[in-house]
Amino acid sequence: MYKIGSLPTGARNSIADVEGVRVGHCTVDTPDHKTGVTVVLPCAGDVYRDKLTAACHVLNGFGKTTGLIQIRELGTLETPIALTNTLNVGLVQDALVEYMCRQAEAADYQITTVNPVVCECNDSSLNNIRRRAVTQDHVLRAIETASADFALGDVGAGKGMTCFGLKGGIGTASRQMVLGGETFTLGVLALTNHGSMPDLILAGTPAGERIQRDLDQTARPDKGSCILIAATDLPLSSRQLGRVIRRGSVGLARMGSYIGHGSGEVFLGFTTAHRVREEAVFQTFRLLGEEQLDLPFRAMAEAAEEAVLRSMLEARAVTGFRGTCRHSLGEVWKTE
Amino acid sequence: MYKIGSLPTGARNSIADVEGVRVGHCTVDTPDHKTGVTVVLPCAGDVYRDKLTAACHVLNGFGKTTGLIQIRELGTLETPIALTNTLNVGLVQDALVEYMCRQAEAADYQITTVNPVVCECNDSSLNNIRRRAVTQDHVLRAIETASADFALGDVGAGKGMTCFGLKGGIGTASRQMVLGGETFTLGVLALTNHGSMPDLILAGTPAGERIQRDLDQTARPDKGSCILIAATDLPLSSRQLGRVIRRGSVGLARMGSYIGHGSGEVFLGFTTAHRVREEAVFQTFRLLGEEQLDLPFRAMAEAAEEAVLRSMLEARAVTGFRGTCRHSLGEVWKTE
Amino acid sequence: MYKIGSLPTGARNSIADVEGVRVGHCTVDTPDHKTGVTVVLPCAGDVYRDKLTAACHVLNGFGKTTGLIQIRELGTLETPIALTNTLNVGLVQDALVEYMCRQAEAADYQITTVNPVVCECNDSSLNNIRRRAVTQDHVLRAIETASADFALGDVGAGKGMTCFGLKGGIGTASRQMVLGGETFTLGVLALTNHGSMPDLILAGTPAGERIQRDLDQTARPDKGSCILIAATDLPLSSRQLGRVIRRGSVGLARMGSYIGHGSGEVFLGFTTAHRVREEAVFQTFRLLGEEQLDLPFRAMAEAAEEAVLRSMLEARAVTGFRGTCRHSLGEVWKTE
Amino acid sequence: MYKIGSLPTGARNSIADVEGVRVGHCTVDTPDHKTGVTVVLPCAGDVYRDKLTAACHVLNGFGKTTGLIQIRELGTLETPIALTNTLNVGLVQDALVEYMCRQAEAADYQITTVNPVVCECNDSSLNNIRRRAVTQDHVLRAIETASADFALGDVGAGKGMTCFGLKGGIGTASRQMVLGGETFTLGVLALTNHGSMPDLILAGTPAGERIQRDLDQTARPDKGSCILIAATDLPLSSRQLGRVIRRGSVGLARMGSYIGHGSGEVFLGFTTAHRVREEAVFQTFRLLGEEQLDLPFRAMAEAAEEAVLRSMLEARAVTGFRGTCRHSLGEVWKTE
Repeated sequence: MYKIGSLPTGARNSIADVEGVRVGHCTVDTPDHKTGVTVVLPCAGDVYRDKLTAACHVLNGFGKTTGLIQIRELGTLETPIALTNTLNVGLVQDALVEYMCRQAEAADYQITTVNPVVCECNDSSLNNIRRRAVTQDHVLRAIETASADFALGDVGAGKGMTCFGLKGGIGTASRQMVLGGETFTLGVLALTNHGSMPDLILAGTPAGERIQRDLDQTARPDKGSCILIAATDLPLSSRQLGRVIRRGSVGLARMGSYIGHGSGEVFLGFTTAHRVREEAVFQTFRLLGEEQLDLPFRAMAEAAEEAVLRSMLEARAVTGFRGTCRHSLGEVWKTE
Repeated sequence: MYKIGSLPTGARNSIADVEGVRVGHCTVDTPDHKTGVTVVLPCAGDVYRDKLTAACHVLNGFGKTTGLIQIRELGTLETPIALTNTLNVGLVQDALVEYMCRQAEAADYQITTVNPVVCECNDSSLNNIRRRAVTQDHVLRAIETASADFALGDVGAGKGMTCFGLKGGIGTASRQMVLGGETFTLGVLALTNHGSMPDLILAGTPAGERIQRDLDQTARPDKGSCILIAATDLPLSSRQLGRVIRRGSVGLARMGSYIGHGSGEVFLGFTTAHRVREEAVFQTFRLLGEEQLDLPFRAMAEAAEEAVLRSMLEARAVTGFRGTCRHSLGEVWKTE
Repeated sequence: MYKIGSLPTGARNSIADVEGVRVGHCTVDTPDHKTGVTVVLPCAGDVYRDKLTAACHVLNGFGKTTGLIQIRELGTLETPIALTNTLNVGLVQDALVEYMCRQAEAADYQITTVNPVVCECNDSSLNNIRRRAVTQDHVLRAIETASADFALGDVGAGKGMTCFGLKGGIGTASRQMVLGGETFTLGVLALTNHGSMPDLILAGTPAGERIQRDLDQTARPDKGSCILIAATDLPLSSRQLGRVIRRGSVGLARMGSYIGHGSGEVFLGFTTAHRVREEAVFQTFRLLGEEQLDLPFRAMAEAAEEAVLRSMLEARAVTGFRGTCRHSLGEVWKTE
Repeated sequence: MYKIGSLPTGARNSIADVEGVRVGHCTVDTPDHKTGVTVVLPCAGDVYRDKLTAACHVLNGFGKTTGLIQIRELGTLETPIALTNTLNVGLVQDALVEYMCRQAEAADYQITTVNPVVCECNDSSLNNIRRRAVTQDHVLRAIETASADFALGDVGAGKGMTCFGLKGGIGTASRQMVLGGETFTLGVLALTNHGSMPDLILAGTPAGERIQRDLDQTARPDKGSCILIAATDLPLSSRQLGRVIRRGSVGLARMGSYIGHGSGEVFLGFTTAHRVREEAVFQTFRLLGEEQLDLPFRAMAEAAEEAVLRSMLEARAVTGFRGTCRHSLGEVWKTE
């Protein structure tokens, strides 16, 4: 149906092609609410004590993502990553704290500090965001149900999102690379809520203006945000991961985004290649040579573009609390 | 008793010497809890619709402060600033969202996005932080009671904080400058929870080792964080404000801090000199000439040092939930 | 022949559509050398004493551009901008210092500090870069001949550059916007030396693989760099300009770039809307409202894409010192 | 005579206590010129092919240091570091390019790109900076004469520098740390040209106002810059090195600096613990655990403070081309 880039995809074409990564959703779907929470469990085992090397990048900072200061300073991730609507960031952050404390207690230790990462997009055009429907319970359920096989489109945090004036939500894609005779995977999970319809490009073909005419719609400005979470098993330093995830901007641009003023574009990346024990005196890391990075850069750009595309293709049409309908790209593309 | 720097202080020697700035506390003081919340109301009127020019700086990013991404991108502050303990950041962020929504509704408009700024230090050596005692109600009460006259030391977010092994908490100081014939004020509010006792320098005089001997204590590592909030009525751009607040590091160093690994040092600044209307087509701003900045730089360094010092001087001794006592600098300094 | 984006171009479709901007080249074209220097004179009058608001962005920092530290700190540009080959950055920087000192002396003042901005790409595949052919004299001649009408393609610093495996060099484009009833212009000058042939996209149509087959060539990795200089008469702060020029990445991605490891992508921007007098006590600036930025963002993305495209279209084929020939896109595209 | 901090110094109390580090000067001392060049050779062997992990930090960006963009992106150093006066940065950069090309040719390879690092301070109050007296020959001589034993004070790039209104120049200091049973060294080289006399603090004791009275001088504003180069054999990543060198600001503040507007404070750091081969597919690095960093942080702060102090103590009085005399701290301190 379409082809993005040249690298092969992983078995699931999913962030969960990186071993250990699981994704869970809890969707709030009522007349008043089209919202929810999505969590990315980044690895097996205890991520708090055996942290992951991580990096972040803010392409456009009109956003409320928490946890980035510490990732930038220490280069590590120590919690699951949660995604939700803009006005529920605080409660979801609080729920992640509670979850991490309980996990620690179950493993017989105490934590007095933790850096939860919560990303957001604004679903207020379909969701009555003011009522802040997402609760701690939703977060815990999303974590419990996390799996390597997970739904895409209008689910979890993606339930109320709008992308290029059509239905957006949760998308994913992955790419494989052979480096030094070993096969590595990079996967991206996208929460998409950005773009203006006339700008939409589908797998290299400008399509937005035609779709807009077909749907007889008026263009909205590019606002609302896009979150990209990248997972990989490539052995990268935090600095190298930062370089890799910055190429997510290529994927967004290829889909037609101009990175609008009101669109908070935030990228996170982590690698499962090693676990960081910050209390060790010394620790040894195998790292990819810098000149090998072109392949991961390409993988990031391709997976980002395809993850955004799939967030739209997999989403069903959703009608919001004020009667606004976001059509599904799946329907519209078929008609071409 | 002591003298920090050479510039004159404002009338209150307080962040509230900047007109319109008010500070409120709500303290949770129970056998189990020594914690609370402190809020800085940055200006009169509606800060959401008439935003303030703002800037932030992360001196050491081992911290969980929220809201910085957007301040960095847009250069504006649109909510009160709240301070609390590390594990309550989420709930306090959520409470600020609720407060902002209600304020907007009272003024007959709706908000679907808001960027609450919540800063934190870790009070877990005195406070049973795991129980996360701070609630939405505490935040709203701190806001309601905010005043230009406010308590210092072991109050609000400062109740359980430890600074250089003694009792820390909330401190403030201000400096006045004459530029172009006009008098301007820069004030700093500090939440102090950093430093290792032997390193303590009091108004230029090394005092930590002596105090440690007198108290017969063992040194703890420098961890825990320090937050500095700077307010001014100087007409500065966000870029210029960023330059000013970065001089807060001078104040910390002069008190003896080495900016420890575990100490999240985060600085925020805002100016009340103008209100930003982001929806305007054009807006005219009077700004200070770049070469005039040496005086504000000095003011920031001096006020930061004195705010930290006063956070300790004004704090009474506090005994924590596990029986640990943090002595008051006031007692100890008197004995010298 | 092609159409990039939706905004109207300026009269010349050039960075020189921004009033006061002039561009000069001096080309070194010998059997051994395909190199040179290009200068952008950013405004009429004395740019050292009446500085321009400026910003910079490093998309990929594998590059040697000078002058960015100060632009980031002070937000101003105080010299012409020079572009040259990688190994001549030092001599060109030195020549700009000499030029600025002489200009000052001609105006009866002395300068003891100046921040020259020199950008570079690596032309070593066509130019015997080791001999460092560019001299102070070339720089001064480029400045003397600067004009609002200037050549594109394989001229000046662009003489030896390679873009997507074809001949690159100097390109330019501009866009016009109406804001608040006034017409503003944003122009981009590109020095292009990046991209891998199979990735090339021409005005939205993937073309690289076909061209590669037609030319029977082997792909080279994406290395070599791309410089974008943006000029505008929009009244923007340095922070806002930074936001605008970051959208240059959209233009690069639309042409097919993955922002390779070895490709130093550096963007500079300045506005002629006001002159900054750093020694003033106060200065008043009219600035665009933040919510108006979507149009300048789009202008930057479109002008960047078209400037890169034109750098290739306007360049004639060039054969380098080792006999390597870089074909002209003009020839190749015509044959399609 | 004085004591800075608590950690032991290395054998030479010098950056050259880090094995392999050598420093060379070439001084230009004529009636018209008090200037020169200083080079830090960071390691034995070929630094271009076997690069060093490096980091940089810009405390105040009013400066012209070259090479930082690439260090930030790639985390490596590939040339010696040169220091000189502000207006000679270009020529010295060019000389480093020439030197690197020749070194490569002597080792039978060619280089077509190289990232020379040149730092600067402004010596124009003693040196006729306009004539730009430093040439390629001076740079090559400084490199040739580099040694683990090198002069301090008014030599090389330090010849014409002014620090707190007294004679500044080149200083150095080192600290030793035991981590995991191994002894490591961190050394700092400072080029000092900053500070306002009344602010001077000597080893914790305010001394500037008294010295100013004794010398009957008028205070000059804090402008002119300070460069800190840190070398270590600690096994650190680029991110960790960045954290370490940022603590150089503590040393500057302890000496009395407020980091003036006009003072470009730039810090560089490198580790000799491993050599980076960017073309390798994988490379293994031993790295220090994050929680061990407090000791290196303290070492950086102490060595920075002492290096600045020694730059003044070791400098003799120098009279500049306009008859201005900068007194030596050595003379003045003795009289107290």
